[in-house]
Amino acid sequence: MTTSVNTTARLLITCPDKSGIVSAVSNFLYNHGANITALDQHSTAPEGGTYFMRLEFQTPHLDLSRQVLAQTFADAVGKRYQMDWHLSYASDRKKVAVLVSKYDHALLELLWRWSRGGLPCDITAVISNHEDLREAVEGFKVPFHVVKVSKDNKVEAEAQVQALLQGNDLVVLARYMQILSADFVHQWPHKIINIHHSFLPAFVGANPYQQAYDKGVKLIGATAHYVTADLDQGPIIEQAVERVSHGDDVETLRELGEDVERNVLARAVRWHLEDRVIVHGNKTIVFS
Amino acid sequence: MTTSVNTTARLLITCPDKSGIVSAVSNFLYNHGANITALDQHSTAPEGGTYFMRLEFQTPHLDLSRQVLAQTFADAVGKRYQMDWHLSYASDRKKVAVLVSKYDHALLELLWRWSRGGLPCDITAVISNHEDLREAVEGFKVPFHVVKVSKDNKVEAEAQVQALLQGNDLVVLARYMQILSADFVHQWPHKIINIHHSFLPAFVGANPYQQAYDKGVKLIGATAHYVTADLDQGPIIEQAVERVSHGDDVETLRELGEDVERNVLARAVRWHLEDRVIVHGNKTIVFS
Amino acid sequence: MTTSVNTTARLLITCPDKSGIVSAVSNFLYNHGANITALDQHSTAPEGGTYFMRLEFQTPHLDLSRQVLAQTFADAVGKRYQMDWHLSYASDRKKVAVLVSKYDHALLELLWRWSRGGLPCDITAVISNHEDLREAVEGFKVPFHVVKVSKDNKVEAEAQVQALLQGNDLVVLARYMQILSADFVHQWPHKIINIHHSFLPAFVGANPYQQAYDKGVKLIGATAHYVTADLDQGPIIEQAVERVSHGDDVETLRELGEDVERNVLARAVRWHLEDRVIVHGNKTIVFS
Amino acid sequence: MTTSVNTTARLLITCPDKSGIVSAVSNFLYNHGANITALDQHSTAPEGGTYFMRLEFQTPHLDLSRQVLAQTFADAVGKRYQMDWHLSYASDRKKVAVLVSKYDHALLELLWRWSRGGLPCDITAVISNHEDLREAVEGFKVPFHVVKVSKDNKVEAEAQVQALLQGNDLVVLARYMQILSADFVHQWPHKIINIHHSFLPAFVGANPYQQAYDKGVKLIGATAHYVTADLDQGPIIEQAVERVSHGDDVETLRELGEDVERNVLARAVRWHLEDRVIVHGNKTIVFS
Repeated sequence: MTTSVNTTARLLITCPDKSGIVSAVSNFLYNHGANITALDQHSTAPEGGTYFMRLEFQTPHLDLSRQVLAQTFADAVGKRYQMDWHLSYASDRKKVAVLVSKYDHALLELLWRWSRGGLPCDITAVISNHEDLREAVEGFKVPFHVVKVSKDNKVEAEAQVQALLQGNDLVVLARYMQILSADFVHQWPHKIINIHHSFLPAFVGANPYQQAYDKGVKLIGATAHYVTADLDQGPIIEQAVERVSHGDDVETLRELGEDVERNVLARAVRWHLEDRVIVHGNKTIVFS
Repeated sequence: MTTSVNTTARLLITCPDKSGIVSAVSNFLYNHGANITALDQHSTAPEGGTYFMRLEFQTPHLDLSRQVLAQTFADAVGKRYQMDWHLSYASDRKKVAVLVSKYDHALLELLWRWSRGGLPCDITAVISNHEDLREAVEGFKVPFHVVKVSKDNKVEAEAQVQALLQGNDLVVLARYMQILSADFVHQWPHKIINIHHSFLPAFVGANPYQQAYDKGVKLIGATAHYVTADLDQGPIIEQAVERVSHGDDVETLRELGEDVERNVLARAVRWHLEDRVIVHGNKTIVFS
Repeated sequence: MTTSVNTTARLLITCPDKSGIVSAVSNFLYNHGANITALDQHSTAPEGGTYFMRLEFQTPHLDLSRQVLAQTFADAVGKRYQMDWHLSYASDRKKVAVLVSKYDHALLELLWRWSRGGLPCDITAVISNHEDLREAVEGFKVPFHVVKVSKDNKVEAEAQVQALLQGNDLVVLARYMQILSADFVHQWPHKIINIHHSFLPAFVGANPYQQAYDKGVKLIGATAHYVTADLDQGPIIEQAVERVSHGDDVETLRELGEDVERNVLARAVRWHLEDRVIVHGNKTIVFS
Repeated sequence: MTTSVNTTARLLITCPDKSGIVSAVSNFLYNHGANITALDQHSTAPEGGTYFMRLEFQTPHLDLSRQVLAQTFADAVGKRYQMDWHLSYASDRKKVAVLVSKYDHALLELLWRWSRGGLPCDITAVISNHEDLREAVEGFKVPFHVVKVSKDNKVEAEAQVQALLQGNDLVVLARYMQILSADFVHQWPHKIINIHHSFLPAFVGANPYQQAYDKGVKLIGATAHYVTADLDQGPIIEQAVERVSHGDDVETLRELGEDVERNVLARAVRWHLEDRVIVHGNKTIVFS
């Protein structure tokens, strides 16, 4: 359902599974004038599991300010059920920066969808270690920064990138061909999304299309995941595949794969922006 | 999530959309000892729409008998929100009869999944207008009845079929090549599921694979829908397609299509059995 | 297989099916120094059918000029087998013009793929009945022409469009919301490709997403086809679908559908450019 | 195209790529009265690659006996182009034995398709290390043998299985939960097809559905491959996937996966039976 972005709030909850949670949360919202327009839940086990919930509600008739609503919810419901919860408002658009190297397909898909209103965020900057995509990015009126990376300046370069990223809510690696340090990653917990050009966990690491070709697989894929300190091992958000055949060489795999990458990354980013993803251990709950 | 079939109840609700429904329903259930393990909702419009809800809850700690629970819900919640609602228990297995002619693929898929526990129902009978499939059906220990249909005995034949169907909760047309009368259909509102071998609304009527071949489509499909008095026009439950090419003749389309029919029908029947389908006008809400 | 575009020739053949065709054609090419690198064939029937063939061959060692090769083939093989045949060279890039109205998704997908080398053609012009997309098109360094169409100037407008199209090999309707006259269409036999935003033959005509929503289908689709004088009835080149649900409103169907349209149209245009499509009656043979 | 099984012959060729092969082969066949009804080819590289070809031809007007045809082809064409080639006749139905443990889904899919004419072979025997599936198999009038396997009798058990397999052309492992010895495998080069219940190379080894669940992948898959001495590493024939979500537990993954396994194995076996698969190193060429 399309609902007005201006009046939509979202509540994400993780807590020990217990009877009465839906009732407690929906009561609280109803009593304060919220109209629940979407509700999804998941529990990891019938008994003793972890419980996850996502609600969308409409705010025009709320009887509390945002700040008081949050505090009241914490006191009245959150503490009682030991909830880890997050309340956000669709009108607070997330700030997003994109890191990229030379391949443009994933980046352009994001910029294009964003420019047409399909990604509810502000894209504040594109940062690359190469000059190549400046014109394409600036055509969308988005600032483009180059931070060159070499063997000798890795630490300084990362610091420079970090400085440019300040103030953003999400970092998207749209085929950024540099490995980020563990330090860097730890500063953005579940706030960096990467697109890997294989169906993970198959073909971790470099040149997955060559690996796929050498193995002779009949499907190639792409995986969008949150970045953790373990290369290509973070929680998977979305995956898709495309059929290939013996007749496709590595270059054709790459071409077919780029279309999959575009779609997978765009979906993962949108779901993150709409607060549809909850990370639990090394897995995700996606209320799509 | 797999939950015990013995303790699961399901509540389906249709009503005018209004603030407070989730709260009212979840409160009621919580207060009577039910633990909500699944909840889906849908509204047709942000304002003034129709609201649909499906809940699964666990019954071990219910403080009321089934009968009193239903009456209390009607009094406390149903009337207040003008709900059309339906409460069922997974332990009450639905009784299902299958009508079939000579093609066996859709029937065998159902019998096979059912025999392996994949369709939560009792298949009470298979009725055909031909003898051909008797051995296959009886191999599953399911009674097989033949009711021959000719130009001259249509009315009597239908009456005979009706008599055999008494006591069932659902009738599945697994490629039954007879058109049921409007009278017959009206006695089974949203309780007859048909598999049509095309992607409806394309190729209504006879011989859709020939129609698809003549048209040169690049995908063929199948559609499971509730039967209404209008041929092939009832509410669609599920659809799927398969890619075909210029190299496929009608016979090959039929073979490829049969696999699609099997899967589509099996999904639609399972969803119906699990109370996941609500009919609204000529459309369905499927909480799958 | 990636082969050099500069040395690739393609031969498309339609003729009555007869024994010996493969032998005659491959012999001819071999004897004149051509190396066959791809060969596809199709026959409509085991006996008395129509036969279709597509060959790709490499030209570096050809012993005849293009003109003499064609004449020699006609004399030595074409006449003997009553062939309708077409010989083309990948280095002769086809000239393509695109007609569009206001929706940009299909157009931009083409321009984007083209700018990255994914569509082997020269896009010579984009013609629209609205100004809206000028900036987007000119950003790709492609000339943009506006020919306004109203109730009163249909004939003149078409004449103006025709004039602009002169010299092109293919016209693509990338969501051009004007119906072309039969006269216009007859001048471009199998040289106009349209993208229709439904899974034809379902939902012919205006507003197919609304039609799909009203019908409650569980998949929406798109169809690329050659334009004939019958609206939305020309030979289908490619189709694809995307799964939708009761939760998707018309706007969401449109968004999901646009992605399908983009992919379907891009594939159809590429196949046409690579001489992979043969029209036979109202159907296509696609050697993809 | 459906062509008569009684008159169809198939020629599979692997050789160094060279100009003139299509011409030589098609000439040879034409000159001896064969009518080519299907032709596929593939080359691994534009220059210096390996060339693969599959032809189907009709035999009614052949002017040579099978034996003389083969000898003549070897002399006239095969030697000249250093071909590794294989000539077979659709009327010589391949003999197939199936090994299985307790899971019935893959086995039943094969038996069912076979009983309906969808797998052109003779299924001569089903061999299991358990009694469980006897009734199901014997219902198809196929002999069922039990060879119990324990830690202590592995060698004898394999010998017993080998004895039962004598005379067959293909062995299908339809979820046979025993690892075959390298010795055993070497006696059936590219003549054992296994279905592995993951999208290889992801999740090699035991319990792939548990592995997939633990990893949190969003698609699960199945892979049919020829068995080599390296566990789950043989040439891949076919793969497919199905979408899953956080809501699916291991048991649900298993259920969804079984449908994928059924389809993937059935396709791979059919392609093998129709001589559509050529093994090249650790990869396959599949002319499907």
